[in-house]
Amino acid sequence: MKTFHIQRPDNEIRQPLISRINNLTKPKGSLGRLEEIALQVGWIQQTLSPSLRHPQNIIFAADHGITEEGVSLSPKEVTWQQTINFLHGGAGVNFLCRQHGFKLKIVDAGVDYDLPDEAGIYKMKVRKGTRNFLHEAAMTEEEMETCLENGAIITNICREEGSNVLSFGEMGIGNTSASSLWMTCLTGIPLEQCVGAGSGLDATGVRRKYEVLKQALENYRGDGSTPDILRHFGGLEMVMAVGAMLQAAERHILILVDGFIMTACMLAASRLYPEVLDYAIFGHCGDEAGHRLLLDYLGVKPLLQLGLRLGEGTGAICAYPLVDSAVRMLNEMDTFHHAAITKYF
Amino acid sequence: MKTFHIQRPDNEIRQPLISRINNLTKPKGSLGRLEEIALQVGWIQQTLSPSLRHPQNIIFAADHGITEEGVSLSPKEVTWQQTINFLHGGAGVNFLCRQHGFKLKIVDAGVDYDLPDEAGIYKMKVRKGTRNFLHEAAMTEEEMETCLENGAIITNICREEGSNVLSFGEMGIGNTSASSLWMTCLTGIPLEQCVGAGSGLDATGVRRKYEVLKQALENYRGDGSTPDILRHFGGLEMVMAVGAMLQAAERHILILVDGFIMTACMLAASRLYPEVLDYAIFGHCGDEAGHRLLLDYLGVKPLLQLGLRLGEGTGAICAYPLVDSAVRMLNEMDTFHHAAITKYF
Repeated sequence: MKTFHIQRPDNEIRQPLISRINNLTKPKGSLGRLEEIALQVGWIQQTLSPSLRHPQNIIFAADHGITEEGVSLSPKEVTWQQTINFLHGGAGVNFLCRQHGFKLKIVDAGVDYDLPDEAGIYKMKVRKGTRNFLHEAAMTEEEMETCLENGAIITNICREEGSNVLSFGEMGIGNTSASSLWMTCLTGIPLEQCVGAGSGLDATGVRRKYEVLKQALENYRGDGSTPDILRHFGGLEMVMAVGAMLQAAERHILILVDGFIMTACMLAASRLYPEVLDYAIFGHCGDEAGHRLLLDYLGVKPLLQLGLRLGEGTGAICAYPLVDSAVRMLNEMDTFHHAAITKYF
Repeated sequence: MKTFHIQRPDNEIRQPLISRINNLTKPKGSLGRLEEIALQVGWIQQTLSPSLRHPQNIIFAADHGITEEGVSLSPKEVTWQQTINFLHGGAGVNFLCRQHGFKLKIVDAGVDYDLPDEAGIYKMKVRKGTRNFLHEAAMTEEEMETCLENGAIITNICREEGSNVLSFGEMGIGNTSASSLWMTCLTGIPLEQCVGAGSGLDATGVRRKYEVLKQALENYRGDGSTPDILRHFGGLEMVMAVGAMLQAAERHILILVDGFIMTACMLAASRLYPEVLDYAIFGHCGDEAGHRLLLDYLGVKPLLQLGLRLGEGTGAICAYPLVDSAVRMLNEMDTFHHAAITKYF
């Protein structure tokens, strides 16, 4: 399997960063989470004056064989239709990218449709959707390997373009099902607590989805290793996101993590290389059942809780201005000494 | 007492707004709080295509006589020192204003110091700090009246400058004490649950603050009416903020509410004119004890929870990009029909 070379940032810089933050003209700790984020970004970039350059959002799109079993409210064709909507600029992610100055990359990781040749799409289709994991592994080892490599390639392209902060999103009808299975297999949390409504199933629909996934788990005959779980239940877009995240950490790029599916991808990435978490900022805790549990399992605190459940990277991008604020705090706020204010702690 | 003419926005527009939001290319409700904010802003502005124009943050600064009793960690001179820091651009609020395109107005509502004549400060000093409410009313009826009128004047200036969205902040060592008393008197929530650490008191300090405020309550001989409570315990900057908020509602301006103190001001405003709440978006729930309780009492949900406790309007301004996102969602997202996507609900 592809290897990544991920190192934890050097801790030497942490104390100087903390001193700097505590000498800014505010009561100690009074900028709360912004202070934590400032410390993390300065630590990752190894500087007291970090900067955010050329943010990009990458959407990996692919289809899932499991949709044959009726696990999703949305019909499968929504995957390719929405992918085209992204290209045309009319989706939720588009206005957020425009608002916050994000470049948007769309990656066809495995959409079951011949997408038109349009600017802005990276054609990295590994397969026209995964196999149905109720009956067989979703992808072969070679396909998984290609996904990891393609994810790394996309991150490298962004890095060459000058980006040091990336958010990742997805489009793939059926991928909450795949994420629930990754979550239960990689954390041991019972499947029932990992399954939710996706794009809007009612209670009966969620129950049916659960029964299908339970059967898929019972049918699984693999070795239970992380790579095998990823391959057996994963989506092509999800494994590609894992590769992109791991490569981002290798290149010291800040990773903005979106909703349930991207959190499941970060979980998977961290099972392969725990150090990847040092580079991750969790943008949003959504309404999908299991997301809060998964964040708690990882021991991380998302910046926002807005009840979003759209994916596409929207929750990560919404959190970006807070990361920007944290960086500006370090660079733009005056110190007590310089501003001649009585230090009161 | 000064009267304000505040009307609830007309409800006729709500159904068309809801239909519009539900036809955008996303699963119904999947943009969560952004959809709620879009509905509120469209309702206030009475249009399906709302806009945010010339956002401004107004900081009201004043001193409090109660600081003589040692209720605050910060010495009183921090009020004028930080006010000058705002003018020089080095405070927390400054980088946030620059980041989000806010104009900043500083109002001297009653700082106990002769501030220099510098650009950007509105000199509306009613008195050099309030009287010590442990022994007497903090201000006279005339002083309260002047505060309400000055607040309305500032809002009108912003409106003439083209602003339709305002956030309000404060600078005033001692004003969490005043806010705690407003809260307990106007809600009936026991004082103990309304008193917190302010800019960073330890447990002993909070206990001492509580004892002083309890004594002040016992010494109070007024009639218990809302205006009398405001006058007796209030800060000059706080009453001015109440006037500014009420005038903003009269002029159909969107109000971004900051932390504990500004929430106490919105509570006071809403006790005089309940309709003011229609115009309010609560930006942030901070760490000050009592803030969460007060938000729950008002039945409102803040957009952010970042552990901020700085005031100055910082929590409100941090929430602004989310309000902007909500407005952009309405204006920029495509509909299912137009984008030719299968509607799946």
